[in-house]
Amino acid sequence: MTGWVVVAGLGPGREDLITPEVQAALAEATDIVGYIPYVRRVPARPGLTKHETDNRVELERAAHALEMAAAGHRVVVVSSGDPGVFAMASALFEALEAGPEAWLTLDIRVLPGITAMLAAAARIGAPLGHDFAAINLSDNLKPWDLIEHRLRLAGQAGFAMAFYNPRSASRPHQFARALEILRAECGPRTLISFARAVSTAEESITTVTLEEATPEMADMRTMVIVGNRDTRRVGGYVYTPRSAP
Amino acid sequence: MTGWVVVAGLGPGREDLITPEVQAALAEATDIVGYIPYVRRVPARPGLTKHETDNRVELERAAHALEMAAAGHRVVVVSSGDPGVFAMASALFEALEAGPEAWLTLDIRVLPGITAMLAAAARIGAPLGHDFAAINLSDNLKPWDLIEHRLRLAGQAGFAMAFYNPRSASRPHQFARALEILRAECGPRTLISFARAVSTAEESITTVTLEEATPEMADMRTMVIVGNRDTRRVGGYVYTPRSAP
Repeated sequence: MTGWVVVAGLGPGREDLITPEVQAALAEATDIVGYIPYVRRVPARPGLTKHETDNRVELERAAHALEMAAAGHRVVVVSSGDPGVFAMASALFEALEAGPEAWLTLDIRVLPGITAMLAAAARIGAPLGHDFAAINLSDNLKPWDLIEHRLRLAGQAGFAMAFYNPRSASRPHQFARALEILRAECGPRTLISFARAVSTAEESITTVTLEEATPEMADMRTMVIVGNRDTRRVGGYVYTPRSAP
Repeated sequence: MTGWVVVAGLGPGREDLITPEVQAALAEATDIVGYIPYVRRVPARPGLTKHETDNRVELERAAHALEMAAAGHRVVVVSSGDPGVFAMASALFEALEAGPEAWLTLDIRVLPGITAMLAAAARIGAPLGHDFAAINLSDNLKPWDLIEHRLRLAGQAGFAMAFYNPRSASRPHQFARALEILRAECGPRTLISFARAVSTAEESITTVTLEEATPEMADMRTMVIVGNRDTRRVGGYVYTPRSAP
């Protein structure tokens, strides 16, 4: 039996946002590997083994997937959203680089999915309709100073911004600091949207100005999108014009 | 009959990259509106009118869609990729803002799709696995100076970058200038990938260093992705590590 590894994006949560390409890979798999809540989104069936792992063990999980593929399994590593955006694809290649040379000949494919920022943007209107930056606000894997530096430069560039992992209980003050920087660089009247649990029953969308924004508006299930200075409301929507002066 | 407008992303080209959510909207539509090649991707059926329009008439197309919805039609405006990323969603809200007040009560929804940069990134490996910027290199709707400014700041921020519309016959020198700026800001050994016609029969993927890159490597069907200074090759893949020093 010839093994393979597919790193697949399950989208933001709703079944009808999963691509047929990903569904086909899930149907052929012998093993599903991933963070507990994502693995649970894949229905059980005979012949399928589900390996649920905790958060923050991405490299071990990736190495396990590669080992199983080398042994002939057909393995799908599941991510929410898109696997290439702050998710499992990079971790898989890191594990590949650190692993035995024989793994380099494995059949590895990355299958895209609807990433959180684009699902959130669609519910908000079109806040990312012009040049934008996607930034992971977690300092687990990079220094907080670098995050502040990037926020400043992104503001100076006039990028709209999408923030993944904006806030967690272990670092409650950092998002407050991020908002301060954004007010200074983007102006207090720039719009900021908080999209929580998009495409699930608990979905909520709130848009305010940076001046009105408070840290409590975000949690780890929230996608935060900041517009540029031209971002505006029309009816119940928020959009960023295609043109810049 | 109650009309509506859906702005839907058809993904990069292959049928199995279209979400079931978008397929359901297409199945309910009375009218499809969009740029000629995208409208042609939707199969004809009785009861469906297809309105093919040329490039660069986005606002007229959007206004036409809103007019038809106001008259009770169920209209899908089709974009390739994701409609919120350099595509029709912003144009629709611009037309909504400029149009009669009655349009503000219309049922308007944006349905996300697999955007070109994420389809390309998946084929390359995981080049956008860390903070990144998405930039439209066309100066149709913004001054070229602003594009240069954004390239410089994005390079200084250490963002990986994805470029939409990198090069056209009408502005052949600009992409050469963009490469010069990138070499200066990101260093000559940073990796750049050219992903052409992703998910179609003509797909080709090339990765070189910025030093080796030439303007001819890109055309309007190419998605260009530049890594950050940590972006590297492993086997046949290119990825950007999740961590930054």
